[in-house]
Amino acid sequence: MRRRAAALAERLPGAPADLALITSLVNVRYLTGYTGSNGLALVGPDTLAFMTDFRYIEQSAAEVDPAFERTIAIVELLDEVSELLPPGPVRLAFEDADLSVRSHTRLRERLDDRVELVAGGDLVEPLRAIKEPDEIQRIRRAAEIADAALRQVMADGLIGRTELEVADALERSMRALGARGPSFDSIVAAGPHGALPHAEPRPVTIGAGELVVIDWGAEFEGYCSDCTRTLATGDPGEPAQAAYELVREAQLAGLEAVRAGVSGRDADLAARAVIDAAGHAEHFGHGLGHGVGLEIHEGPRLSRRSDSVLESGNVVTVEPGVYVPGEFGVRIEDLVVVTDSGPEILTTVPKELIFVD
Amino acid sequence: MRRRAAALAERLPGAPADLALITSLVNVRYLTGYTGSNGLALVGPDTLAFMTDFRYIEQSAAEVDPAFERTIAIVELLDEVSELLPPGPVRLAFEDADLSVRSHTRLRERLDDRVELVAGGDLVEPLRAIKEPDEIQRIRRAAEIADAALRQVMADGLIGRTELEVADALERSMRALGARGPSFDSIVAAGPHGALPHAEPRPVTIGAGELVVIDWGAEFEGYCSDCTRTLATGDPGEPAQAAYELVREAQLAGLEAVRAGVSGRDADLAARAVIDAAGHAEHFGHGLGHGVGLEIHEGPRLSRRSDSVLESGNVVTVEPGVYVPGEFGVRIEDLVVVTDSGPEILTTVPKELIFVD
Repeated sequence: MRRRAAALAERLPGAPADLALITSLVNVRYLTGYTGSNGLALVGPDTLAFMTDFRYIEQSAAEVDPAFERTIAIVELLDEVSELLPPGPVRLAFEDADLSVRSHTRLRERLDDRVELVAGGDLVEPLRAIKEPDEIQRIRRAAEIADAALRQVMADGLIGRTELEVADALERSMRALGARGPSFDSIVAAGPHGALPHAEPRPVTIGAGELVVIDWGAEFEGYCSDCTRTLATGDPGEPAQAAYELVREAQLAGLEAVRAGVSGRDADLAARAVIDAAGHAEHFGHGLGHGVGLEIHEGPRLSRRSDSVLESGNVVTVEPGVYVPGEFGVRIEDLVVVTDSGPEILTTVPKELIFVD
Repeated sequence: MRRRAAALAERLPGAPADLALITSLVNVRYLTGYTGSNGLALVGPDTLAFMTDFRYIEQSAAEVDPAFERTIAIVELLDEVSELLPPGPVRLAFEDADLSVRSHTRLRERLDDRVELVAGGDLVEPLRAIKEPDEIQRIRRAAEIADAALRQVMADGLIGRTELEVADALERSMRALGARGPSFDSIVAAGPHGALPHAEPRPVTIGAGELVVIDWGAEFEGYCSDCTRTLATGDPGEPAQAAYELVREAQLAGLEAVRAGVSGRDADLAARAVIDAAGHAEHFGHGLGHGVGLEIHEGPRLSRRSDSVLESGNVVTVEPGVYVPGEFGVRIEDLVVVTDSGPEILTTVPKELIFVD
């Protein structure tokens, strides 16, 4: 934790700022260890402070790195930030993607003129994007749990169960295997419903001869996994089979492109070119992938509009898809660690089209 | 839905504004019916517009009230808001508690000078605080499901199960009974752990002679329920029993105070006075209650610092507690509809101290 705060403090001159006010709860967790629902941190070269309210006195005592001085606010945390600041002029960087306009106005009103508020940009996210070995270990465990849950679902079969039942079974399995829960709302989408990239599971029975898109993940010790497999309940027809093979080829091309030094844009393009060349350009409307960690979507992004460059220690998804409205959807997604020499794949489920009764 | 948008449009002159830009997803859902993860709405006397991205084309077609003109954004939704605006000068109210400083800056950069951005305050929340009969029906159903799940847990017993197992069982029951899931992370906290108002369930076995605080709720068709009961696994000792009776007395006093026209502050005070008089003032550090609806915490607030006045149609919790660090915690919470003549209690579980093996 202290290493992370020190790395943040090193970034401050670039803001430019003297201190960082961290209000995003996931970033507060990353820096301090705190997992409650109300808290903030103040970080600078000589400052490590944490604030929460009455409800979290005991929890914060147990969780927050003792290097942080803890304060319990009486009313609103932001109203009491000024009391944590050193004397004299201070340039205070805030998280402008997190702080609402209203909170910013309120904070400004409570601070002396000696305090300059600076929109800090992404202060913590670049640190979070490069995972430490312990973080990768937790993500790996989350992925293992998720994979085991899918294997159970495959063993139990799909035909005759509803999408919702399968989603519930996945989530139950993941909990039973030690996950805190799913890392996002599971997608189980059969037949034409699979053409919705973010489909919600329905109380609709899965039939034979359908493609079934399953996108699910586990949360383990705060860290997420994310994986998609498209299974077949018997022969889904030639166009669907061909689309499956196409997406698999695109996914392998995407994996091959993922290594340190490659831009998120180029990685996306490597997979997208395969799909475009087959005439399915309009059926792949989302990006190739995204970082995964404490949040299910974080940096770096792999997409046409990404300005990220992949670095060793990134953990990202590689998930091309082809969605034919009214017909079917295919998505194949692996979770990988970026290294200098290519991806280390955390997902263990095979990628050949698997037939499940 | 249209009635809601019309009510919002009526509020605009007060902002003062011509149009409202609604970016909070829960408010977008309230106004349009859309449940996806990316979308916004534009509402004015002659404007009903909705925007999402590629991923939600089909879902938005199915969900969004057809009175709203739908647009699919190519890139970032906020970048394309200008194309939805009528010609000429426009005062555009935004949700300042939702829009981040960064998004606001980006939006401002994309808009002509003819558009004035106005911090709109709570544009939709006051409408949401007064529930329609259909909304109350959904909340009632959520509460019934949650109550049934607790009865199942009570029948299965507590002693020898871990807090986590009990929390999982509650959540499984709620899903089996038709809930979308829990409306928040369930709390199951035995013995001294109950002294943490927001305790996380632990893999720790519940023993005999303990108080067990259980705070849980169901989500049904988007609407939340919220309830707390404190059960006893045998005699918890005299101080804990006395605290239980005190909290029950305070809860009844709170219920008695809850009716249309009473301030959130006075309702809080009615319960708090009972606890204060018994010398436990320092052990009741949170407010008496909060509104519940599409979100688990919404308006109105019942607390020492509330500026709400209760209105008929509010749905609020009444949940005093006494937390003695290192010893035990007690909280008793009902979910009620505010009416002119007092509260209509949606919770059906009794409030006498219940002993469960």
